[in-house]
Amino acid sequence: MAAAARLVSTTLARSSSLAAAARRPDLLASSPRGFSSMADSIQRSGSGDITRVLFCGPYWPASTNFTKEYLQSYPFIQVDEVGLEEVPDVIQNYHLCVVKNRRLDSDTIAKASQMKIIMQYGVGLEGVDVNAATEHKIKVARIPGSTTGNAVSCAEMAIYLTLGVLRKQKVMDTAVKRKDLGIPVGDTIFGKSVLILGFGAIGVEIAKRLRPFGVKILATKRNWSSDTLPCDIDELVDKKGGPEDMYEFAGEADIVITCLLLTNETVGIVDHKFLSAMKKGSYLVNIARGRLLDYDAVFNHLKSGHLGGLGIDVAWTEPYDPEDPILKFSNVIITPHIAGVTEYSYRTMAKVVGDVALKLHSGEPITEVEFVN
Amino acid sequence: MAAAARLVSTTLARSSSLAAAARRPDLLASSPRGFSSMADSIQRSGSGDITRVLFCGPYWPASTNFTKEYLQSYPFIQVDEVGLEEVPDVIQNYHLCVVKNRRLDSDTIAKASQMKIIMQYGVGLEGVDVNAATEHKIKVARIPGSTTGNAVSCAEMAIYLTLGVLRKQKVMDTAVKRKDLGIPVGDTIFGKSVLILGFGAIGVEIAKRLRPFGVKILATKRNWSSDTLPCDIDELVDKKGGPEDMYEFAGEADIVITCLLLTNETVGIVDHKFLSAMKKGSYLVNIARGRLLDYDAVFNHLKSGHLGGLGIDVAWTEPYDPEDPILKFSNVIITPHIAGVTEYSYRTMAKVVGDVALKLHSGEPITEVEFVN
Repeated sequence: MAAAARLVSTTLARSSSLAAAARRPDLLASSPRGFSSMADSIQRSGSGDITRVLFCGPYWPASTNFTKEYLQSYPFIQVDEVGLEEVPDVIQNYHLCVVKNRRLDSDTIAKASQMKIIMQYGVGLEGVDVNAATEHKIKVARIPGSTTGNAVSCAEMAIYLTLGVLRKQKVMDTAVKRKDLGIPVGDTIFGKSVLILGFGAIGVEIAKRLRPFGVKILATKRNWSSDTLPCDIDELVDKKGGPEDMYEFAGEADIVITCLLLTNETVGIVDHKFLSAMKKGSYLVNIARGRLLDYDAVFNHLKSGHLGGLGIDVAWTEPYDPEDPILKFSNVIITPHIAGVTEYSYRTMAKVVGDVALKLHSGEPITEVEFVN
Repeated sequence: MAAAARLVSTTLARSSSLAAAARRPDLLASSPRGFSSMADSIQRSGSGDITRVLFCGPYWPASTNFTKEYLQSYPFIQVDEVGLEEVPDVIQNYHLCVVKNRRLDSDTIAKASQMKIIMQYGVGLEGVDVNAATEHKIKVARIPGSTTGNAVSCAEMAIYLTLGVLRKQKVMDTAVKRKDLGIPVGDTIFGKSVLILGFGAIGVEIAKRLRPFGVKILATKRNWSSDTLPCDIDELVDKKGGPEDMYEFAGEADIVITCLLLTNETVGIVDHKFLSAMKKGSYLVNIARGRLLDYDAVFNHLKSGHLGGLGIDVAWTEPYDPEDPILKFSNVIITPHIAGVTEYSYRTMAKVVGDVALKLHSGEPITEVEFVN
């Protein structure tokens, strides 16, 4: 990874004169011109004086705001956030792009003539057509979750949602409104078996935290080789398996937490077969990606009562329709895709994006992110 | 404690003929009569054939229901739940009373001519005038929390409420309704200092669970002598203090969790002085008793923004007025006094109450509960 990063930054340094602008912050600091004229000027002159960072779309606003704050004393880095629909019209002006939940397809990527790096503000990369980026010699990077607080934040959220479904959050809210007291009867994490689907950085952080709650932990992972995991893994996991074990493990679990990346293999992986394999009355928590779950299968298992509760931070489309029928079940709770959105994680990731922009500008090797192409 | 229990049960066995009914389950099993005529019959005959258990009031319904279920095959134990207002009119018919949130005052206790034991379905005892009970030779007992799952359940709830305030539960709900995404920016437990006020059974369970979240734990306790605490206390707590240290500790904490019993000394202990000593923007969680908090002081510190969030399972009066102004702050969340209300804890406590009733009936020593007089 480090080698790849060095290669990129070397190439970037060679192919652009961006580094020069580091010595000329005066150039734009006092410029009264708006974005469009600025972009025109850059295009006309072919100058690399400004490194331009594009955040796509209005969601997760703190990603843009915190990055701007981090970079506020570097006037040669320009950070803009543009609406999702405008992205294809302006992308040619940018050198670094943070996609958020705009899917950058091959048509849009083809227009990104000055683009050097496309990133996500987190670990997922389903928002980028990596093949198209590779074809256009654009590097694609994710921010590793284990070092930025993303995994920690997501793990805490998984535990929050787990407790929320076990304690029947909506029923509690109704009880308060009705002036009931001492209902509903909830369930404890204590004594339960928890299946973590996809035992990556987030799964590890969940297991660490759940351990002293008094649980049995089952986990599946494609590759249990030691180099990708902390050394005390046997302390954390009672039963390890591969993807092929997920149905058997589901039958033993009271709580299932999905922590998988969304890929062609994992889309819809929580389907009728899997849900039916789960214990009657067991709980499902998803803090990864909405489309890991097959909507119809989940809906039907809620309707039948087989699924005891559902807690999701992510949904099938986002933002999710608050009137969707699946949200009407009293044992379903949803949060607005904020598992990784904490001061700790977002400030740290703003520093990563900011440092990548600064290094892209100066031509230094970029080691903060994980390049995937 | 065991000696006291034995004394009680011996006295009870001697002074009543309740045990005889164990051999006569037929007496009432097929009786079609309702509660009132039954009570009359007992009063008229003076018979002790039935041991009568009174649950006061409609709240925490699972306490009554689970106890009835546990005792369903023992027809010589009668479990009734009566409205709070009716309690004084019927209490003379009962041998065992579970007070829930009805305060049993001296007038009511004076009428309880057949009463042997007054209990709470949990660890608190503020619902009983213990002196009046003692005067009338009625034993008062609490169910220890460390062995019934109550402490475990309350600890889990404390963590749920902590995560709820850190992640801004109400703001999340609003974001979902507005189709916002990726807001609000929450806070992690990771990296925080947590002050546990009152390091009893619940505090220990909270500390055990918070440890791997990556926190510094401060705790106050009147008596840190080893016999009341698990041996690995130094692993759990970074900084131990007495009640006199609470103001200093408050200044170091990002999160304060109150786990104190409500007594004359602790009522209103979280007052203006304490809240002002807390860090600006820090969070307060109360899973113990509502009146530990001074309402006006908490309200004012929320209004000023000094208090960053409040999560309460308990309130100043219960059930609490859902329209109370303090609940209107977007950083205040409340649950309906269900911290200890879980299947695990409530089934276990139903067994305790049931076994106490059975032993009261048969005259065996009662060791399941902790007598306080």
